[in-house]
Amino acid sequence: MNATVDSASLLSCPVPAPDNACVTMAHGGGGRLTEELLAGVFRPAFANDLLNSRHDGAVFKPEAERLAMSTDSYVVNPLVFPGGTIGSLAVNGTVNDLAMCGARPLYLSAGFVIEEGLPMALLRHIVQSMAEAAALAGVRIVTGDTKVVDRGKADGLFINTSGVGRVIATAPVDAREMRAGDAILLSGDVGRHGMAIMAVREGLEFESDIETDCAPLNRIVDDLFDAGIRAHCLRDLTRGGLATALVEVAEVGSCRLLVEEEAVPVSAEVMGACEILGLDPLYVANEGRFICICPETDANQALEIMRRHETSAAATRIGRVVSADHGGVVLNSRIGAHRVLDLLSGEQLPRIC
Amino acid sequence: MNATVDSASLLSCPVPAPDNACVTMAHGGGGRLTEELLAGVFRPAFANDLLNSRHDGAVFKPEAERLAMSTDSYVVNPLVFPGGTIGSLAVNGTVNDLAMCGARPLYLSAGFVIEEGLPMALLRHIVQSMAEAAALAGVRIVTGDTKVVDRGKADGLFINTSGVGRVIATAPVDAREMRAGDAILLSGDVGRHGMAIMAVREGLEFESDIETDCAPLNRIVDDLFDAGIRAHCLRDLTRGGLATALVEVAEVGSCRLLVEEEAVPVSAEVMGACEILGLDPLYVANEGRFICICPETDANQALEIMRRHETSAAATRIGRVVSADHGGVVLNSRIGAHRVLDLLSGEQLPRIC
Repeated sequence: MNATVDSASLLSCPVPAPDNACVTMAHGGGGRLTEELLAGVFRPAFANDLLNSRHDGAVFKPEAERLAMSTDSYVVNPLVFPGGTIGSLAVNGTVNDLAMCGARPLYLSAGFVIEEGLPMALLRHIVQSMAEAAALAGVRIVTGDTKVVDRGKADGLFINTSGVGRVIATAPVDAREMRAGDAILLSGDVGRHGMAIMAVREGLEFESDIETDCAPLNRIVDDLFDAGIRAHCLRDLTRGGLATALVEVAEVGSCRLLVEEEAVPVSAEVMGACEILGLDPLYVANEGRFICICPETDANQALEIMRRHETSAAATRIGRVVSADHGGVVLNSRIGAHRVLDLLSGEQLPRIC
Repeated sequence: MNATVDSASLLSCPVPAPDNACVTMAHGGGGRLTEELLAGVFRPAFANDLLNSRHDGAVFKPEAERLAMSTDSYVVNPLVFPGGTIGSLAVNGTVNDLAMCGARPLYLSAGFVIEEGLPMALLRHIVQSMAEAAALAGVRIVTGDTKVVDRGKADGLFINTSGVGRVIATAPVDAREMRAGDAILLSGDVGRHGMAIMAVREGLEFESDIETDCAPLNRIVDDLFDAGIRAHCLRDLTRGGLATALVEVAEVGSCRLLVEEEAVPVSAEVMGACEILGLDPLYVANEGRFICICPETDANQALEIMRRHETSAAATRIGRVVSADHGGVVLNSRIGAHRVLDLLSGEQLPRIC
């Protein structure tokens, strides 16, 4: 694959460029080099019948009464970090957004904006991590697009993934479905993704490496619905962390939520790192955690199902919906005080996802 | 809308920022300012029931046996140009990709990567042009995402749009369906989009302004299928122009195409600009032109239908599929010579879409 290629073979049969190569503007021009980039890097990694037709898009049978659709652009810096890459993040992020709609993710699109000069080997590594994440989640990348921008006009690589999934929830999954008395379940400890990124970016060394929690959540959600759990609201905890997710669902659902800070799991490493940096772990990003808000009568069974999956083995109950008339989140803090959570007015950690 | 706002009202009720404002990193942090940006700029422009649920995605009924899915990222420079913006381009581009799959576009997603410092008024203008393009094409923008990157790490704004559409073609629309004897129809004159961009970017002044041809093609395609035209292959002519589209479909379909250069309409302005810049209009990008390859017996009716639409009023026959055994395009040039077209080896016009 990495042998030196002569110009004749480049013209007659696209082959991957050598791995000491970099992406050039010409790779984005829509001509022969674009075709080589697609044939050499993207198509082999994402190979499937729908993708290979070299068409403007993919055609599939929905085989569902309702579909969910979601999109996210990823601008994380750095592109590779402990436990993941921008590529695995881009796949899992959209997979998880679909799962949070009560859907089984089926097909993803992938759009790449590449800065001229990105090492081809790094691009290959990231694309490979996308392919692996897609295989793990059981989704197919069926259509894509590649653009190249001049040096200094992007930051290595931005990726957009969009996806469609088959809705498997039989009732709406929406914050507006929350009811007083519902239990708030959290799938695991919080703050890993944000702290993993910060540690690399700031060159911080902690006693042990903090790895991102980035993971697909769709199989857990599948099992919840298969078992008949009435999930009124599902929300993954990304940018802005647990606190932001709680405030958003409280606002949309016009409910008051009461959360026990003591009940929210935070690892010692993440807690230590947050203390050093002066950050509140409740506001730090995650990429493999979610909250499930469901009737109290379903809560124990839901927790049991969640704990069967490695990703959510530490699932726990963190609070409840106390009333359905005011939008807001009250945190019963470790020291017993009540504190109203709000959205951060600005940003805590830029370029985290 | 542009009145000065105090911090209390910012917290209680998101309002648009004043128009002399710029996008800041905090607008991408996922907190209060992100919510303000969404509530002040994006949601009012794209308003619809599916979008307004403030969820991770949108849920809809496919109501189709087969769906098409497509994605494109847009990095055009400059962001605003004669006849369009990156926003109208992003909507029409994905609408057209879906139409080229034989589908009626239904729902789009929109992902924004914004450079810190982008003037809010410019963002508003672009978002408004997206909303207008969506209304014109009859599609809804149902889900979106906004990221902000630091100054110098993007080039103002990149937009990704992805879309799904209902397949209305009853037979596959794919280059592999082409047959010897098929007619090649072109929907109008070529090269306008690329030359409109180049004129602005290079500060060139031509005798008259060249406007982009950027337009939605879906209603034309709708009418072709409604009339029973057996379109074997549809391809819009974007990056790389008419020549690249022809070479690609010839390669995928393993057919030899013969095209009469004389028959390809090029306006005097575009021809003049191409001569000044030393460009071949056949390779210059378009954003509202397509080729339809169909049985010769359907060709006249197809042309008649295309000519009823303003966008394709100058539709014409430019050639035919001469054999179904070798992939390649032969151009019968103006001076009577035969020339084999190839993909450009590098790039002609960077950042054109």
